Amino acid sequence: MTIARVTEISSTSETGFEDAVRNGIKRANETLRNVKGAWVKEHTVDCENGNITRYRVNLMVTFVLDD
Amino acid sequence: MTIARVTEISSTSETGFEDAVRNGIKRANETLRNVKGAWVKEHTVDCENGNITRYRVNLMVTFVLDD
Amino acid sequence: MTIARVTEISSTSETGFEDAVRNGIKRANETLRNVKGAWVKEHTVDCENGNITRYRVNLMVTFVLDD
Amino acid sequence: MTIARVTEISSTSETGFEDAVRNGIKRANETLRNVKGAWVKEHTVDCENGNITRYRVNLMVTFVLDD
Amino acid sequence: MTIARVTEISSTSETGFEDAVRNGIKRANETLRNVKGAWVKEHTVDCENGNITRYRVNLMVTFVLDD
Amino acid sequence: MTIARVTEISSTSETGFEDAVRNGIKRANETLRNVKGAWVKEHTVDCENGNITRYRVNLMVTFVLDD
Amino acid sequence: MTIARVTEISSTSETGFEDAVRNGIKRANETLRNVKGAWVKEHTVDCENGNITRYRVNLMVTFVLDD
Amino acid sequence: MTIARVTEISSTSETGFEDAVRNGIKRANETLRNVKGAWVKEHTVDCENGNITRYRVNLMVTFVLDD
Amino acid sequence: MTIARVTEISSTSETGFEDAVRNGIKRANETLRNVKGAWVKEHTVDCENGNITRYRVNLMVTFVLDD
Amino acid sequence: MTIARVTEISSTSETGFEDAVRNGIKRANETLRNVKGAWVKEHTVDCENGNITRYRVNLMVTFVLDD
Amino acid sequence: MTIARVTEISSTSETGFEDAVRNGIKRANETLRNVKGAWVKEHTVDCENGNITRYRVNLMVTFVLDD
Amino acid sequence: MTIARVTEISSTSETGFEDAVRNGIKRANETLRNVKGAWVKEHTVDCENGNITRYRVNLMVTFVLDD
Repeated sequence: MTIARVTEISSTSETGFEDAVRNGIKRANETLRNVKGAWVKEHTVDCENGNITRYRVNLMVTFVLDD
Repeated sequence: MTIARVTEISSTSETGFEDAVRNGIKRANETLRNVKGAWVKEHTVDCENGNITRYRVNLMVTFVLDD
Repeated sequence: MTIARVTEISSTSETGFEDAVRNGIKRANETLRNVKGAWVKEHTVDCENGNITRYRVNLMVTFVLDD
Repeated sequence: MTIARVTEISSTSETGFEDAVRNGIKRANETLRNVKGAWVKEHTVDCENGNITRYRVNLMVTFVLDD
Repeated sequence: MTIARVTEISSTSETGFEDAVRNGIKRANETLRNVKGAWVKEHTVDCENGNITRYRVNLMVTFVLDD
Repeated sequence: MTIARVTEISSTSETGFEDAVRNGIKRANETLRNVKGAWVKEHTVDCENGNITRYRVNLMVTFVLDD
Repeated sequence: MTIARVTEISSTSETGFEDAVRNGIKRANETLRNVKGAWVKEHTVDCENGNITRYRVNLMVTFVLDD
Repeated sequence: MTIARVTEISSTSETGFEDAVRNGIKRANETLRNVKGAWVKEHTVDCENGNITRYRVNLMVTFVLDD
Repeated sequence: MTIARVTEISSTSETGFEDAVRNGIKRANETLRNVKGAWVKEHTVDCENGNITRYRVNLMVTFVLDD
Repeated sequence: MTIARVTEISSTSETGFEDAVRNGIKRANETLRNVKGAWVKEHTVDCENGNITRYRVNLMVTFVLDD
Repeated sequence: MTIARVTEISSTSETGFEDAVRNGIKRANETLRNVKGAWVKEHTVDCENGNITRYRVNLMVTFVLDD
Repeated sequence: MTIARVTEISSTSETGFEDAVRNGIKRANETLRNVKGAWVKEHTVDCENGNITRYRVNLMVTFVLDD
């Protein structure tokens, strides 16, 4: 019997969505144990003066709870 | 690179939805830092004896994590 | 064991959404017993000559059936 | 035979959602004719230092095209 | 005025979905107070060699925060 | 040419979801004729003191209207 | 202040979807007053021996309640 | 590299949905170039005195922008 | 105990949506047995030079598998 | 690099939903290799003369393709 | 009080989705002022002779209207 | 009159989502003719020991059936 929690984080990057995903997983692992995976719920970009300043992803991160 | 968390809270008021939103944000700020905003996911009311006893909102609250 | 019915009504107000919700619950209670609550499914406004003439909400109203 | 267009706008207020809806309809009427109504697609708030700074609604505004 | 939090957990069982729901609620109560209820968001099964090895449910668990 | 109506009911059980579905269909048949079937729209549980007190299902029940 | 109800019916035809819609509205008017309109929620067909035997539509019918 | 815009229009007909679609596309072509296609987002009917007075479709029309 | 498969096909017609549905069911029956019915998931049109060239429907076709 | 296919089946049982899930997985394994799991997309029941005659589930079954 | 518009564009690239997003934002800035950001609504690819010929994204672009 | 089928596959890559899309299209073309395109339904990642081990996409692949 395994119990996992699913938490939503948003993470950004200045270069692209895949980099934003990696940043998010990296940060999640700093505070959570047993991170199993994530579903990318949203892809958005912020813009200023005609340029993309940030790529953002909202991730639903699943991590298994210790018994 | 910023990482934020999104957490779902529900908050109530006896007077209206906007008051319920304010209550929720106020309570969130008691335990969370850098609250950036919220999306109102649901509006519901509870009733008893023909009257509205509670206005409830479910809020997806975003707060930025410290590095 | 409780059985409840969920019925959809739309109700309007000339002053605002919360007033429209109250009107809807009030009217529901005129014909239904044991109204327990409602989920606000939709918020819409009607306009004429540049002004909002009606605020409308669609409510999913739950009421418990007598045994 | 009537043809209408549906356009999405977001509008804000510092006091509440209903005020944000009124601001949006008012602004829409400055540039569009025959505004018939709007569906409130989203309710969000922005926060700073623990307080709500802006109430925002995304409105799908319907206006009838002249023949 | 009550404030509640909604958190997503996934829990498994080797015998069935209802057992997985009970496991999830039991585990939630080990770390959370005032668990009021849960909505079953997803039902999934894992399989190996033609057999169901795990029944999994994703639960949105609501628990009331102390003032 | 057949015309059917679809009505939403919620029904509970203290033992499980399938029992809640049976209770709902049984109750529907007490007041409706020609019940053809139902779609289970939602599965929820209520909890008190760490235990599941009620299993609830929301059913969209289809019944054929007499000509 | 107007209050309307929204009820879901499904209606069929052996010739096509538009005919099924007309059948549904016609039947609704036999039992309901002030039918204002309907949203076509679903289009389905039944088949036997390789042929379409029924066109079915699920309609969300809105009718205004008398005061 | 092609860039297209997607705009939502609603169009009506007194005879049927397919006619309403044709009316919408015809009108779109009066003001837009390079209309490539449309997705029918909604089918609705208006009624008066028990009869269908208008068939309405909401179309998401795609048209390619000139470079 | 019956097991059915659900497969998605898209089919077109130059005259209308209902014709496209009939084309799709006809083609499905050329390769599948026991076709029971279909849900119309999407209605789209293609356009060229201001005219509708194709009506397309996406159908979720259900067919019962032999034991 | 793994490639999997996801196929939708519906399966029934006369005793309950969990049994219907087992029937579906069992049947899927008769014709597919490497079945990894399934998501329960829909729960429905058929009724006759006031009784539930069939419990049905629609399953999205994932199976890994051989290289 | 700020009012923004949200418009849907689709843009393509022959190399990848992130490039398609950049193309879309670049084109949007040629005709719109104050582009604040975009939500990536859809990712699709076109294929010919077994190869991906175009990566396409549908973007919901938000731009603030001048007062 | 063209008839196409839409099938769901999931494909992975160890380097990124776009690579996973290319892998999926390549594999689809090994068994299917006339692949016209695909819609990316889901983006997920698997993780182990704090690292992303697989990027996965679920693709709805459309291929035209021969007459």
